[in-house]
Amino acid sequence: MIILGIDPGTATTGYGLIKIPDDILGREFDYGIELITYGNISTPKDRLMQDRLQMIYSELSSVIKKYQPDQMICEMLFFGSNTKTAIMVGQARGVIMLTASQNNIPFQDYTGPQIKLMVAGSGRADKNQVHDGVRKFLGTPGRRKNKLKARWKGGHLDDATDALAIAICHVLKLVSK
Amino acid sequence: MIILGIDPGTATTGYGLIKIPDDILGREFDYGIELITYGNISTPKDRLMQDRLQMIYSELSSVIKKYQPDQMICEMLFFGSNTKTAIMVGQARGVIMLTASQNNIPFQDYTGPQIKLMVAGSGRADKNQVHDGVRKFLGTPGRRKNKLKARWKGGHLDDATDALAIAICHVLKLVSK
Repeated sequence: MIILGIDPGTATTGYGLIKIPDDILGREFDYGIELITYGNISTPKDRLMQDRLQMIYSELSSVIKKYQPDQMICEMLFFGSNTKTAIMVGQARGVIMLTASQNNIPFQDYTGPQIKLMVAGSGRADKNQVHDGVRKFLGTPGRRKNKLKARWKGGHLDDATDALAIAICHVLKLVSK
Repeated sequence: MIILGIDPGTATTGYGLIKIPDDILGREFDYGIELITYGNISTPKDRLMQDRLQMIYSELSSVIKKYQPDQMICEMLFFGSNTKTAIMVGQARGVIMLTASQNNIPFQDYTGPQIKLMVAGSGRADKNQVHDGVRKFLGTPGRRKNKLKARWKGGHLDDATDALAIAICHVLKLVSK
């Protein structure tokens, strides 16, 4: 099963794709979560908002076409955020949810604190703790872990790493049921 | 010039299309705003949110294809609204803005108080006053006015009438420059 996690935003929408084994519920020592890929969809600030949303829509549609995820998971804003942020994130979420519907992919979301709690053990975990959690769940110590680390050095992939955390959160919810 | 006004919402997205004459800036007694059509895109509550957004996207794309508007105008939430409302409206706005970008139609928005002020003379006007304003600007007394009234009786077209108010607000902004 392939899971696409998404951290929505108009400036940057991060995405992360992982694969979980069919026998995940019977596994005792390692969930066997595999990293497929992750990246950022960044849109230029000087472009019109509707065109930036079109870029997110178009790039995400390509990612979906290429990797054929079975499930899409997105972060939901925590209530109490300010109106402007909520509208902006809502707009990005709108086009993301549209790609889910158009490709018949089940869509689900979790709030930030839910994701932090599942991946890092506390709803108030900071970014580093969440990233450590991502490394822990993806990295069978060795190749994959190092690969992930190597990519991190390459650029500003905070949003993509958050997207992986979102996908992993869903896996942990699945196995904890 | 054809203007498409849109009142965004996931349960109901209202739309209204008007036509303004090329010589509108030189007109003294009547802007000559013509009503083309208006309606609601309603989505069933029991469907998944992503599928409801797809319905809005699909129906609005059809309206655009049919009437070929030159400008799209949408209501922007007033800051201070609650987070949940802002996310929901933001999601609908996202797919609406996407249709603007995909069809190369300029997109602009106004807040509720701006719309009320332009169409009804006060930023705190109530729904009836806004509807009276719509009637005033669209209704050369006679056929068009009665037609509009007749349609109002037909259903719950509050959102569609608000969408017309949004389109008219843009016209009044144009002529007041």
